[in-house]
Amino acid sequence: MRRIDFSTLNRLVEAKQLKPLKEALADFNVVDLANFIEQLNRESVVYAFRALPKDIAAQVFSYLSFESQEFIVQSITDQEIGHIINDLFSDDAADLIEELPANVVKKVLRNASPEVRNTINQLLQYPAESAGSIMTAEFVDLKKHMTVGEAFARIRRTAFEKETVYTCYVIDEHRRLEGVISVKRLLVTPDDTILSQVMETNIIKVTTTDDQELVAHLFAKYGLLSLPVVDHENRLVGIVTIDDVIDVIHEEATEDFERMAAMLPSEKPYLKTSVLSLAKNRFAWLLFLMVSGMIVGSILAKYEEAFVAIPLLVTFIPMLTDTGGNAGSQSSTLVIRGMALSEIRVGDFLKVFFKEFRVSLIVGLGLSIANFIRIMISYKDPMIALTVSLSLYLTVVIAKTVGGILPIFAKLVKADPAIMAAPIITTVVDALSLMLYFRIAVVLLKL
Amino acid sequence: MRRIDFSTLNRLVEAKQLKPLKEALADFNVVDLANFIEQLNRESVVYAFRALPKDIAAQVFSYLSFESQEFIVQSITDQEIGHIINDLFSDDAADLIEELPANVVKKVLRNASPEVRNTINQLLQYPAESAGSIMTAEFVDLKKHMTVGEAFARIRRTAFEKETVYTCYVIDEHRRLEGVISVKRLLVTPDDTILSQVMETNIIKVTTTDDQELVAHLFAKYGLLSLPVVDHENRLVGIVTIDDVIDVIHEEATEDFERMAAMLPSEKPYLKTSVLSLAKNRFAWLLFLMVSGMIVGSILAKYEEAFVAIPLLVTFIPMLTDTGGNAGSQSSTLVIRGMALSEIRVGDFLKVFFKEFRVSLIVGLGLSIANFIRIMISYKDPMIALTVSLSLYLTVVIAKTVGGILPIFAKLVKADPAIMAAPIITTVVDALSLMLYFRIAVVLLKL
Repeated sequence: MRRIDFSTLNRLVEAKQLKPLKEALADFNVVDLANFIEQLNRESVVYAFRALPKDIAAQVFSYLSFESQEFIVQSITDQEIGHIINDLFSDDAADLIEELPANVVKKVLRNASPEVRNTINQLLQYPAESAGSIMTAEFVDLKKHMTVGEAFARIRRTAFEKETVYTCYVIDEHRRLEGVISVKRLLVTPDDTILSQVMETNIIKVTTTDDQELVAHLFAKYGLLSLPVVDHENRLVGIVTIDDVIDVIHEEATEDFERMAAMLPSEKPYLKTSVLSLAKNRFAWLLFLMVSGMIVGSILAKYEEAFVAIPLLVTFIPMLTDTGGNAGSQSSTLVIRGMALSEIRVGDFLKVFFKEFRVSLIVGLGLSIANFIRIMISYKDPMIALTVSLSLYLTVVIAKTVGGILPIFAKLVKADPAIMAAPIITTVVDALSLMLYFRIAVVLLKL
Repeated sequence: MRRIDFSTLNRLVEAKQLKPLKEALADFNVVDLANFIEQLNRESVVYAFRALPKDIAAQVFSYLSFESQEFIVQSITDQEIGHIINDLFSDDAADLIEELPANVVKKVLRNASPEVRNTINQLLQYPAESAGSIMTAEFVDLKKHMTVGEAFARIRRTAFEKETVYTCYVIDEHRRLEGVISVKRLLVTPDDTILSQVMETNIIKVTTTDDQELVAHLFAKYGLLSLPVVDHENRLVGIVTIDDVIDVIHEEATEDFERMAAMLPSEKPYLKTSVLSLAKNRFAWLLFLMVSGMIVGSILAKYEEAFVAIPLLVTFIPMLTDTGGNAGSQSSTLVIRGMALSEIRVGDFLKVFFKEFRVSLIVGLGLSIANFIRIMISYKDPMIALTVSLSLYLTVVIAKTVGGILPIFAKLVKADPAIMAAPIITTVVDALSLMLYFRIAVVLLKL
């Protein structure tokens, strides 16, 4: 891991040596500068922030936590706020406004330029997790009658204020998207070529209301650096850049991890989430699964006589239900993940079913044989060994086939496949395996 | 989802209409062309591949599955192979060589140019999942005494054969990395400026043997488009580009999903993995957990008298163990994911412990009260209700604290934290909760 040493900077801040501090700060990367400010105590934050080179202050600001951003905004002058909000890329500005308390929002927007205010207000209207909500309004737009040389002149003039310049967008007078051209392509094309001759017209794009998961999928599939976002009249309103997509990919995977472990997804990193909201995110599902577990348990009440007659039967319950749960969650996990990566579609239903069925026949056989041998060694009772092993075999087969197809079923009824992960599978398989086990016991052991 | 219609292309291939086919192919994106070729039947694959525009054939080839790549390589002429292998970016070429059977590898390398052969052989030496194994050797290198104008001239001359041109690397005569400069920065800098005045010297870089997880972490942290890879003498040997990093991020998350569901990670997508290797990936862990489950079950044998006296006690076993497993896997999942994203470190041990402890007190209380009420309603036996609810409370507290700290403990002993996920937690918590439950039952119910 790359660890940055902030001790010199910290010393300069403490000693309030502004000039050497300014010089030292200029050597650092904006991300490291943000981390440096995060680790300062409250009194020094604003001092250090003001010592940053003016042209990167907004960039550093955009990498700070919302807590630090709010603290800084509340501590600096209106004029300083104006500089920062106008220098921020619009997606970062919109994120900031969304997190700040209402009274601070007013103060910030009052100091923004009218155009910036306008853009932010527009971005805030898009639904959460939509393409519109993660796009930025700063991109390079060109006209198709321009030459490559003219295009470069325009890029060079405006590059500084754009989030990315490496993909340029060709639009008509109504801002409708007509073409896309990369700077790499421009670089290998003679200066006097007209853009319409070299621009890509088969454009990969999304609309503002498309889900951010689709956005991430297109970036991965086509190896994009940025993606144009159009409104429903094909007017170019923004672009999504790859740094935000990496965040989306991490976020979506984290949400799946959380859902699959029976939790409501959390907005913040673990250490920054309060105990109460962690408890809230976890309680509802645990309660639901606990009640389900009780219903499963009540199946056992019907077989009281069986296990009072042969109490040994009870000792195999944890092994049976755990193995069923594990076998099922292996299958559901692979299918859920495959669906998240668009590798498995609803139409693959039968393929998944047969695959899981065959896998379960093999795995179940191996486990049952091991089980049979171990019970014979310990208890030397072939009928009990047969009862348990047969139940185990059927449990594994049911667990794997059900585990494989439940996530696809969820998708079919427009639910999130991740919901059908380990906890649900475990509960369903518990019920089925216990019923099977005692039915088989009653028959084979003549109870 | 963006669906591409290949029906016209398919018709042209079937009718063997080469000229209109060539024209039609020129309109498509390289990724879509690869998908088009994937869905053709074997006889048509080579025909369609040969109809591709020469300058994008290698690119399309790089997006094909290894099966199709192998089939094409075995079906085309030596000269055609030479063109493709020399046009491929070196990381894609190395991946290809790694997957092909030995006899085909010979054929391919024989047709590669000496430099290309050399580069591939070098890339193949780096360990799997290292920075060296995912880097490409095609990057733009500049010298620090060049002017911005000279830099642009060099970029324009060589851009076509580079995987990315947007970040350029300044090296000395021994190929040691001295600076980094983005094309964006070059674009906003006057043509006569000397590179050494504007290049970034505080360079974010990795060495060839660094893990790809570190690479992905640096890309996300610093919002990079490419990252230089140096050898142990600080000589620049390659760069990692962001498209490969997105694959790494997906891969690493998938591996964690698999490990957390007690499976060995698979190399291929689910639908392309054979039944036998799926079974193999799943069997060892299931067997281990099954044996653990048996050991847990044998705890119950000690309490035969208790549940023969009050058989009702058995019916609460699934609810208790399931709730314990679920509560524990919620905690372990959040901590494992937090560690994967570098949000939680080993040093946060105590923070995690106290957080989980407090969450478990709240969640456990809620669940126990619900449990108590429901048992009173059904069975009207306050002592049984108390026994079960108290066991449940303690189970949740133990499950969450153990679930939270086991992954950190794993990291401490250099094991993968993901191993400590739901299946292990479930087994550990099962054992603890069953012991607790029957101990409490023996005392409270005087058995």
